[in-house]
Amino acid sequence: MPIGLTRRQCLTLFAKLAGGSAALMQAANVLGLTSSPGNAPPIIFKAGSGQQKSVVMLGAGIASLTAALELSKAGFHCTILEASQRVGGRNLTVRSGDFIDEIGNPQICPFDPEPHLYFNCGPARIPAEHTALMHYCRELAIPLQLFSNYNTNCYTQDDKAFAGKPIRIREYETDLRGFMHELLGKNLSKQTMLDEGIGEVELERMMEFVRQAGDLNKDLHYVGSERAGFASGGITAPGKLKTPRKFEDILHSDFGLAAMYFMRFSDQAPAVMTPVGGMDKVVQGFLNKLDPKLVDIRLNCPVRAIQVSENTVDIEYEQQGVIKKLQADYCINAIPSQILLGITNNFSPPYLKAISKIQRGNLVKIGFQAKQRFWEDEHIFAGISWTNQDITQLWYPEHGFMQQKGVLLGAYSWEPDVTSRFMNMTHAQRLEVALTQGEKIHPQYRQYIENGVSICWQRMNHLLGCGSQWHPDDIEEHFTLLQQPEGRHFLVGDQMNLLPGWQEGAIRSSWLAMSHIRQELQASSGVQ
Amino acid sequence: MPIGLTRRQCLTLFAKLAGGSAALMQAANVLGLTSSPGNAPPIIFKAGSGQQKSVVMLGAGIASLTAALELSKAGFHCTILEASQRVGGRNLTVRSGDFIDEIGNPQICPFDPEPHLYFNCGPARIPAEHTALMHYCRELAIPLQLFSNYNTNCYTQDDKAFAGKPIRIREYETDLRGFMHELLGKNLSKQTMLDEGIGEVELERMMEFVRQAGDLNKDLHYVGSERAGFASGGITAPGKLKTPRKFEDILHSDFGLAAMYFMRFSDQAPAVMTPVGGMDKVVQGFLNKLDPKLVDIRLNCPVRAIQVSENTVDIEYEQQGVIKKLQADYCINAIPSQILLGITNNFSPPYLKAISKIQRGNLVKIGFQAKQRFWEDEHIFAGISWTNQDITQLWYPEHGFMQQKGVLLGAYSWEPDVTSRFMNMTHAQRLEVALTQGEKIHPQYRQYIENGVSICWQRMNHLLGCGSQWHPDDIEEHFTLLQQPEGRHFLVGDQMNLLPGWQEGAIRSSWLAMSHIRQELQASSGVQ
Repeated sequence: MPIGLTRRQCLTLFAKLAGGSAALMQAANVLGLTSSPGNAPPIIFKAGSGQQKSVVMLGAGIASLTAALELSKAGFHCTILEASQRVGGRNLTVRSGDFIDEIGNPQICPFDPEPHLYFNCGPARIPAEHTALMHYCRELAIPLQLFSNYNTNCYTQDDKAFAGKPIRIREYETDLRGFMHELLGKNLSKQTMLDEGIGEVELERMMEFVRQAGDLNKDLHYVGSERAGFASGGITAPGKLKTPRKFEDILHSDFGLAAMYFMRFSDQAPAVMTPVGGMDKVVQGFLNKLDPKLVDIRLNCPVRAIQVSENTVDIEYEQQGVIKKLQADYCINAIPSQILLGITNNFSPPYLKAISKIQRGNLVKIGFQAKQRFWEDEHIFAGISWTNQDITQLWYPEHGFMQQKGVLLGAYSWEPDVTSRFMNMTHAQRLEVALTQGEKIHPQYRQYIENGVSICWQRMNHLLGCGSQWHPDDIEEHFTLLQQPEGRHFLVGDQMNLLPGWQEGAIRSSWLAMSHIRQELQASSGVQ
Repeated sequence: MPIGLTRRQCLTLFAKLAGGSAALMQAANVLGLTSSPGNAPPIIFKAGSGQQKSVVMLGAGIASLTAALELSKAGFHCTILEASQRVGGRNLTVRSGDFIDEIGNPQICPFDPEPHLYFNCGPARIPAEHTALMHYCRELAIPLQLFSNYNTNCYTQDDKAFAGKPIRIREYETDLRGFMHELLGKNLSKQTMLDEGIGEVELERMMEFVRQAGDLNKDLHYVGSERAGFASGGITAPGKLKTPRKFEDILHSDFGLAAMYFMRFSDQAPAVMTPVGGMDKVVQGFLNKLDPKLVDIRLNCPVRAIQVSENTVDIEYEQQGVIKKLQADYCINAIPSQILLGITNNFSPPYLKAISKIQRGNLVKIGFQAKQRFWEDEHIFAGISWTNQDITQLWYPEHGFMQQKGVLLGAYSWEPDVTSRFMNMTHAQRLEVALTQGEKIHPQYRQYIENGVSICWQRMNHLLGCGSQWHPDDIEEHFTLLQQPEGRHFLVGDQMNLLPGWQEGAIRSSWLAMSHIRQELQASSGVQ
């Protein structure tokens, strides 16, 4: 890729001129390599620069896998200690027979053993702008397909509007835009425009913009629009417009206040993709690429103590009831902060205080196996329905179209009070609540659902929560402090980024940690 | 599918009560079976009701394939006469080595022989609401995937705005919405709302709706939005908002007048899909299902004469320079009107006059093979860029992500003056124009393009045009007349529907023709 290479060469040049990773990261920012634009190359180590060096990664999620991949390429000996029985962290896709290790509420995934019947319990989509993750999808040859956050055939349902009946998103949006732009057209005075410094020619065009935005008639009235879909006809007979909903009803629904704009968020707008066959294809991609001679992954090994010395980090961990010790030159630590704070350590007080500032989000997802893809009979293929009930969303699978069965998402909730309600239920109770609430969107819901899984991340063993949240007041002092090494200990993971809950942040935090390691290696060896 | 069956049973009941296809179609309309909602069952014939009967289909496009599939199921002997060397009509996907039979401008598709390097010259997408086509995708087991009409990472480029520079759609849309809703917030007076019958509570909510729609600050000012993507940061450093564009610049661009709302059209809004591997998988699906004992497809057989008698239709066609005759009980005719009018016939004057009312749209598509998927370096995966230049659109493939090479659409034009310009060029000239114009969107365009195909449908042999257009004044008299049989001759195809250029219309016109045949069979046999 000539463009990528050129940028990378440019970056190397910057690094040589400025010497050091802080400058490198700054340059990378200027070049757009660390945020949305540009192609993101990983931290490149000089070949063999890690030989005779050891790194221990704590937690086998995406941050540690990233570090293990890059560091092992440079010859580092890598050990990953993972408390649970599996690799992947919150990247968790469940299929028939998989164990879901929720504390006090263990489940075995009851789906049929078919390749298209799986459920992404954690991350489920990859925005194209997440160039770090996209970089690894390319390097690890992970096939991607389109994901859909937005399907106008899906529903919005709100108990406060339309007598609680579900409304197709295309009807809701078309009517809302029609009414709002009609109001804009009516109220927009020439004088206001001139006051804004907008000339007469632009005013003329502005009115046409308003008309198009609302699909208004020539008198700037909204009288319905084919954008809402036809009431009848349109193919072998002339199409008849649907009667618009009452504006007041629309205003009583919360959809137009928030959810309607979800698909415009910078990290949710198209193009959004997903790995073919499940998000854990990313984990599998890393595992396929890691050299077992250089990367030793130890499962069921919870960490019990972390001691940072000047040139080493000492770890105590438990394996089959026995405490074991491990010393490494570097430690890349992805243990969730709320668990980390309970592990014996010798971190400095400011470092510990900063860790304590990390807030933890919660999240609930429910996946249902349907014996028939009833949503396809309603012309729904992928996308999200929204409701103001606790389940918040229904997702229809973006794969397996027209197969007999399918797995759909029956709840996706993140509000603290809502997730608490789900947390305090048995698995069976959660499914029952999700079915009952789902029936307000699909009255026939229950008859098609065969079984389901529920994941309350705040109860998941060894994780106890979902994405981190940083209070804006804590960023400058505490977040920035934690981006620096504590000796040769580096805190990574989703908790060390400002974009909660994305794999992208885990990777970039790992890259940042490695940039420090690389800088230290260069300083100690005198190699630029 | 219980729902579908119930509706079908209901439909049969209607038909029995009302007797006849006009009533049947009317009932179908009421039940939502012929337009967007509902599951669309095909015309069902009584088993064996076509035995000893013959049908000739003229033209081997989707309308005729539909008729051949359904009629052969009922035992009819079907002959399809096709003037060209291939089956599919305007459903044309080209791959390495395929012949493109443009009159005076023949091409051989120069793409590399790889499965993901293909180009849909005709239809390329299937809206979920096109239930007739979706019905056959299901019956014929054609795998579908998501298609994308809307990717916020794509560009809009207009010579009249932003100094002709391409702008990411997400930036354009976010800024336009921000400015427009700021204006709405400023100008919306309480009195106007009260005049509209909207109460004070709703006024309060309305302001919040306006704020959310534009992502305005608490003072209802638009100061930029993360919806436009961050200028920098956002992950390992706080995100910085982009500076909004000048409203005046946005108003000078035409994108907000039309193209911006393309993805809201009832037949272009998500969910839109496409067959995995190319649109001609639909054609292949029909061919796989047709029983060769009952369906005889004769290629390179242009029709020379059509004589309609009381109980038969006589066809003369040419095969290897020899005129041949064929008599059938029924004729389903999909020959494009502008060609049909030049074929000897004995149609009645009103029927002929009605045929002459069919207007023909033109369409140009250009497909380029790129040696590198350079758009993916710009985070574009699928979707459409728009320009006010003749090429109108660029489409980025929705498949083959992260492969080395890709085929992208380099022009999609339908305006008569634009398509005329392309028509009056050689193939090489068209590609050169498309490259030059494409460079305004992707400055590095030319260096990546290896070869291309161009299709001007108005010059394609045996078709001479694209989708039909019916003037609204002609529908009641002429379109409706042509929906009726002329003896046992039925005019079908995209030309016999009000939704130009979609396969859905071709199928539904064929269903309508078959409903007449079924009605006649029932009447003559006394069978209900």
